[in-house]
Amino acid sequence: MNAPDRTPRTLRLHPTDNVLVALDPIDAGRPLDGGLVAAARVPKGHKIAAAAIPEGAPVVKFGQIIGFATADIVPGAHVHVHNVGVRDFERHAEAGEAAERVSTLPPATFEGFRRADGKVGTRNYIGILTSVNCSATVAKYIAQAVERSGILEEYDNVDGVVSLVHGNGCGMAGRGEGYDLIERTQWGYASHPNFAGVLLVGLGCEVFQIPRLKERYGIVEGDHFRSFTIQDTGGTRRSIEAGVGVVREMLPRANAVRRETVPASALVVGMQCGGSDGYSGITANPALGYAADLLAAQGGTAILSETPEIYGAEHLLAARAETPEIAEKLMERIRWWEEYTARNGGEMDNNPSPGNKAGGLTTILEKSLGAAAKGGTSPLRGVYEYAEPIDTDGFVFMDSPGYDPVSATGQIASGANLIAFTTGRGSAFGAKPVPSMKLATNSDLYARMTEDMDVNCGDVLDGVPLEEKGRQIFEKMLAVASGEHTRSEDLGYGDAEFVPWHVGAVM
Amino acid sequence: MNAPDRTPRTLRLHPTDNVLVALDPIDAGRPLDGGLVAAARVPKGHKIAAAAIPEGAPVVKFGQIIGFATADIVPGAHVHVHNVGVRDFERHAEAGEAAERVSTLPPATFEGFRRADGKVGTRNYIGILTSVNCSATVAKYIAQAVERSGILEEYDNVDGVVSLVHGNGCGMAGRGEGYDLIERTQWGYASHPNFAGVLLVGLGCEVFQIPRLKERYGIVEGDHFRSFTIQDTGGTRRSIEAGVGVVREMLPRANAVRRETVPASALVVGMQCGGSDGYSGITANPALGYAADLLAAQGGTAILSETPEIYGAEHLLAARAETPEIAEKLMERIRWWEEYTARNGGEMDNNPSPGNKAGGLTTILEKSLGAAAKGGTSPLRGVYEYAEPIDTDGFVFMDSPGYDPVSATGQIASGANLIAFTTGRGSAFGAKPVPSMKLATNSDLYARMTEDMDVNCGDVLDGVPLEEKGRQIFEKMLAVASGEHTRSEDLGYGDAEFVPWHVGAVM
Ligand SMILES: [Ca+2]
Ligand SMILES: [Ca+2]
Ligand SMILES: [Ca+2]
Ligand SMILES: [Ca+2]
Ligand SMILES: [Ca+2]
Repeated sequence: MNAPDRTPRTLRLHPTDNVLVALDPIDAGRPLDGGLVAAARVPKGHKIAAAAIPEGAPVVKFGQIIGFATADIVPGAHVHVHNVGVRDFERHAEAGEAAERVSTLPPATFEGFRRADGKVGTRNYIGILTSVNCSATVAKYIAQAVERSGILEEYDNVDGVVSLVHGNGCGMAGRGEGYDLIERTQWGYASHPNFAGVLLVGLGCEVFQIPRLKERYGIVEGDHFRSFTIQDTGGTRRSIEAGVGVVREMLPRANAVRRETVPASALVVGMQCGGSDGYSGITANPALGYAADLLAAQGGTAILSETPEIYGAEHLLAARAETPEIAEKLMERIRWWEEYTARNGGEMDNNPSPGNKAGGLTTILEKSLGAAAKGGTSPLRGVYEYAEPIDTDGFVFMDSPGYDPVSATGQIASGANLIAFTTGRGSAFGAKPVPSMKLATNSDLYARMTEDMDVNCGDVLDGVPLEEKGRQIFEKMLAVASGEHTRSEDLGYGDAEFVPWHVGAVM
Repeated sequence: MNAPDRTPRTLRLHPTDNVLVALDPIDAGRPLDGGLVAAARVPKGHKIAAAAIPEGAPVVKFGQIIGFATADIVPGAHVHVHNVGVRDFERHAEAGEAAERVSTLPPATFEGFRRADGKVGTRNYIGILTSVNCSATVAKYIAQAVERSGILEEYDNVDGVVSLVHGNGCGMAGRGEGYDLIERTQWGYASHPNFAGVLLVGLGCEVFQIPRLKERYGIVEGDHFRSFTIQDTGGTRRSIEAGVGVVREMLPRANAVRRETVPASALVVGMQCGGSDGYSGITANPALGYAADLLAAQGGTAILSETPEIYGAEHLLAARAETPEIAEKLMERIRWWEEYTARNGGEMDNNPSPGNKAGGLTTILEKSLGAAAKGGTSPLRGVYEYAEPIDTDGFVFMDSPGYDPVSATGQIASGANLIAFTTGRGSAFGAKPVPSMKLATNSDLYARMTEDMDVNCGDVLDGVPLEEKGRQIFEKMLAVASGEHTRSEDLGYGDAEFVPWHVGAVM
């Protein structure tokens, strides 16, 4: 439907690519920018050869091999399943050989809350956590009672009191990976720099035992961490009263902290993708990847996750690992996932669906690279299990499901103090205590759900360079980290999105 | 520590038992009620022989075989692991041969809400359900906005507007048992007689698709059921507005229903046990079992669940089945559980722990019968999968984990309009839209958490006969079903305890 007098738009995602993405449908014979002429009809979203690709030569998109020509491909040809295939190639490239984008930005800063342990918060909450679903209602009423009391008006520097409840903590094995996951997640939240203080409420007889958590992490109760159980405290009403008392004690100290200027290296950004569409891999994800490269260059931390969605491109991520040990840890996680899905009667399968193929995705590499594009091109400096504390600067990977609330919960437990979330279909996700900025992959979505979106990346299709969009996202990260509200914060999201990964039988 | 001049108390749980339970520690040589003399020291909670039990003869407690004498046991002897063992015996007793207690109560009634489909509600709520965690916050704000608007004051017959949110609905396989479980649970709630109307809110792109649910159950949107997605509606704020509008439309019709006198046969009681202690199996559980027998005799439905907790006594339950098909369905579920725990790296194990043994539990049969005692002694008239609609009167079994919120969620989805929950350590559980009455197993707990407990069964230890306690529980069931508030309702429980069973990988 493009006007006959307008040149159909194409997008080159990386300087070394030998294919372009058609942003408009292209008729055979149409001249394109750069002297190229379409040799065949190319649907919107599909690939067109930017140069001759001889049979057997790699097809390069995102600066990465997405497959190999199965026939000689002429410049301007439609590049898809009819002339591209995947074959075994040496994907175990030497760890760390992939290039790093060099940032040209001067040192950046933001205004954060520096905590006693050296970590930096982007928000200043008091949290009410629960060891088990059986204490969820008490936790909710503690937070609600404090909010309704009006006392928070005296404490301007406190962003709020939030209860984070969940469905786990009992009816589970008392040891093993399922227990460890919950324990890491709980402690990751309890020790998160966005909390000035945390109260952990239990029932008492649950499998997840607060004394075990305290022993495991050497936790001493004090200004930052308090706990009790409903059974010890004598029931619901007394527990709510006790909890309100604990929060009242924590508030003056929580309110005394002030934002101060800190380097961007203190920023730890969890990257998320939810409700992907055909634009995710060509607009918001690579733009976010550019921002992640800028962040990594500043000594900040950028966390890629959602293991099932990068499945098929893991060798390319591993090739970016700084050490063979990091590469091996990633491959070990992939094997774990193959076993996890198999034991649950499924299988890892990220192959392009018929719908993906109709939209122009040709190979599993191309599809997975579209998701991995959020990670940019910096060296991979660490691989972490779900909710494991992240102690490395730069680009890292934290294993998680692709399911947004579960993945973001793990990233926050691992130390993320900001979430950057791309969405094509339109997710309204928000978390607490960590702000989540949402990046629309297309302008239609942005127009339809403007109130839920922080950045429109759809204008990349109108010619805004990915680098410029990436810088814009990076600047927005610094602003949000400094206290600027995201849309999901203004809408009040974050009390219902704490969803720890549950692995294992419910008994 | 009993005064030397007071006869130590003992408890006979069933007329045919050949052992008594010591309610006080008993010294060797102490005379007991009924002419018995203790032949050895018997700790509190342990068993004492009420008659001679020759080697090889069955040891009978709860009216059931809990093991066999491994030596000749004299009257007054301590009966425990030193003289009792389990051996293979014909536990596949003829289905249906077990006795049924005959109720002597006249026909009972309660005041319930009769719905158009013939089902009877015990409460009258409007529900906001969610297809996925991604719509949880919108659902919460719809309920909150309606509550805060004050409009509910005009609708006295409506108990409230409740949002039931959860962590599932995406990052899961789109078919198979995990999907089926969620789908049954959602529809069980959406069609529950305690809801006058239900709004189901989705995000749009999630695995759990509302159109599939509607097709599966032939649902037509109307006064009782409405749905929309956030993506179709254009974001968070518009979705909350739309949801409030739907609730406002539903309220007048919801308010028009009136309680009317209905037979006790319309009562469907889910039985639960949480935070068990050494008294559960001898006070609250058998008292509840007596109430369940009274209910079954009236044509009501009593649902036993918590499969892992009755493991080891399944043959005795199967022996009570009315037909071989019902018995086989129970054994099939047991085999499924063995496979489910094995695939998750665990095993079914309900054997008495060292702590159980110190408390007086001798065999797996005895332990499991203590949990199954909630089910009374009526014939087993049906076995259902989790959240499967229950269409049978009398005593039935619904498969579920032992974890309270997950099990109760399944029972409510199956049609339970009342939950009866025994607890020894002290659970504060409450659900919506269904009232949960809590039965304390001991008077210490009742004193410590009186505000959370509805019935004290601890006085069975002081001589209140189990039959009398059972009648008291049954009367309380009718009162609560008629609108009398439970403690957990007064405390405001039930918004955070909707926890559908998640089976399978999170992806
Ligand atoms: Ca709140
Ligand atoms: Ca850093
Ligand atoms: Ca995702
Ligand atoms: Ca009935
Ligand atoms: Ca239980």
